[in-house]
Amino acid sequence: MGGSLGRALRRAGVADVRGFDPQPGVAAQAVALGAVTSAAQTLEAACDGAACVVIGAPVPAIPSIARAVLACAPEDCLVTDLGSAKRSVVEALGPVDRERFIGGHPICGGERSGVAAAREDLFRGATWFLTPTVEARPGLYERLHTLVAACGASPVAIDAAVHDRLMALVSHVPHVLAAALIHQAADTAPEGREALRSAGPSFNDLTRVAGSNPPLWADILLANRDAVVEALEDFRGRLGAVGEAVARGDREALLTFVAGAAEGRERLRAGAAAPSDREPWHIVADIPDRPGALSEIATALGHAHINIGDLVLRPGPPGGVGELVIRVDDADSAREAVRLIAERGYTTRSSPA
Amino acid sequence: MGGSLGRALRRAGVADVRGFDPQPGVAAQAVALGAVTSAAQTLEAACDGAACVVIGAPVPAIPSIARAVLACAPEDCLVTDLGSAKRSVVEALGPVDRERFIGGHPICGGERSGVAAAREDLFRGATWFLTPTVEARPGLYERLHTLVAACGASPVAIDAAVHDRLMALVSHVPHVLAAALIHQAADTAPEGREALRSAGPSFNDLTRVAGSNPPLWADILLANRDAVVEALEDFRGRLGAVGEAVARGDREALLTFVAGAAEGRERLRAGAAAPSDREPWHIVADIPDRPGALSEIATALGHAHINIGDLVLRPGPPGGVGELVIRVDDADSAREAVRLIAERGYTTRSSPA
Repeated sequence: MGGSLGRALRRAGVADVRGFDPQPGVAAQAVALGAVTSAAQTLEAACDGAACVVIGAPVPAIPSIARAVLACAPEDCLVTDLGSAKRSVVEALGPVDRERFIGGHPICGGERSGVAAAREDLFRGATWFLTPTVEARPGLYERLHTLVAACGASPVAIDAAVHDRLMALVSHVPHVLAAALIHQAADTAPEGREALRSAGPSFNDLTRVAGSNPPLWADILLANRDAVVEALEDFRGRLGAVGEAVARGDREALLTFVAGAAEGRERLRAGAAAPSDREPWHIVADIPDRPGALSEIATALGHAHINIGDLVLRPGPPGGVGELVIRVDDADSAREAVRLIAERGYTTRSSPA
Repeated sequence: MGGSLGRALRRAGVADVRGFDPQPGVAAQAVALGAVTSAAQTLEAACDGAACVVIGAPVPAIPSIARAVLACAPEDCLVTDLGSAKRSVVEALGPVDRERFIGGHPICGGERSGVAAAREDLFRGATWFLTPTVEARPGLYERLHTLVAACGASPVAIDAAVHDRLMALVSHVPHVLAAALIHQAADTAPEGREALRSAGPSFNDLTRVAGSNPPLWADILLANRDAVVEALEDFRGRLGAVGEAVARGDREALLTFVAGAAEGRERLRAGAAAPSDREPWHIVADIPDRPGALSEIATALGHAHINIGDLVLRPGPPGGVGELVIRVDDADSAREAVRLIAERGYTTRSSPA
């Protein structure tokens, strides 16, 4: 994914995009493929004078790499990552680390890996979760927001633990289900009749993702261990209840179960639809010159599904009050955003953009 | 689905296609829409002089309707159905009933119901399972095979219990999983963040079928109760094992699980691929003039995935030996079919068609 990010940043006009990989030859290949502008020989050389360092690595390795980067990067350098689980990373780092380290997770189909598969449009239209903690420096969050938007993605702030539970629900458990369905069909398809021969569209839909990239998925499940275990247990309980309803012939319970899924699906779908009225509004909030305020506001808006188009900080005097200016998609979003920001004690005003 | 069948039969040149529905007006609507050639006022009138009666009804209602049809239909009339579960129907009927009743189940997307949604090409290319028992009269099985093929579908004989276990694996459990996933996401999507907003393709793939047609699906699950309960229990066990591997951080077990799914998927997919060499062969088997032989041969070939293009019976003298002539897709299928038929004690020979 690092290669795709390099391409996206170069396309966005970033002049100096350095690549570093501990495996010899990878960074040089990235230069040859145009994914980065130069190859660094050491981590220190890669970080020297950098405005932003992005770590692409397996989740368990990220905290130690982040510490190494923070130790050699400039004092005002943003450090972020691309890992698919966030709580373990954020919790492994200390409060001082988290002033400059802000976690990130772009949601884009990245089954293929390796720099040769890099695509400059990989992030276009994607949700890119950011997990600023209260310690995050507002100016570095602004920089990360801008970087993500420059890649064509939508930056969405979210609490790290909420992110992990959400990913367990919409990605990790579905992957486990798909793989388990294939195992079940392959192990128990009766009397030599193998399942896909006569499988309908539902089986094919459900198992499309099964078995992709075993090492990546083993690591993803382990990196999000607590949330995955909890969601799987919850899911087993739901299946048990359906099985019992079938066993006792409880048609009412099954009607409620299937009809409830139809309603839930409509509700989730309605939430996902784009609003029809698209007249952007600006919101200005007075925020004190301290970490925490911007993280709090961005995360509240992220949890409420309010899309933040642009995000600009206008710092006030040291220790005084500055302004946060954000653009949202429409009047409804602006109304809801003003309510959420005011509720947290900040003075705020809005107007059509 | 009755309306689509009527249209398909009319297109295939069947001159007299009668419709009967206990609900007033439905059969007349089917005439108006061209799905049948005439509307019968009573079940008796519909069955009078019929060569074939097809029952389209919820699975629990099928046995009693079948008995009513068998009581008034001609002595040489084939009776079949379209139900999605077969064992309970076949077992509810007696051996004498099963001489003329041969169960059927066309596998085609039929989420919409009602005669207005009828499509004459609904069955084209579909697998249509047939569940002849040992009692089934060979001439009536031949007639059913021909009728199904005339609708553009592939008739595949299968044991009723095997059919039900297969449907649990490839259709009924997947539907339950899809609905349960939606319930889980709708109930537990954390802190107001609803799942589909940020759901990746896997979640959308897995939940596409969730919630469709609650009464139909409640009845399908109940009609296939034993197989569904067993498959759900088996599936819960698989999820439990994965959850335990995640909880204890067992990367090896997870690698085996995901990689095994990839292998299983490839194997199932290879089984589903059409053979490249498509030179049809004819197979002729000598079969005695008694029920059971044709059911046995057809089911053995169905379980082995051997597609039977045409099926013709050439009866011998009463009590003597006749010939069964079938066409299969290629030389490999012919070799395997000859082996399976000979293994069951019938004299057989094959040649390119």
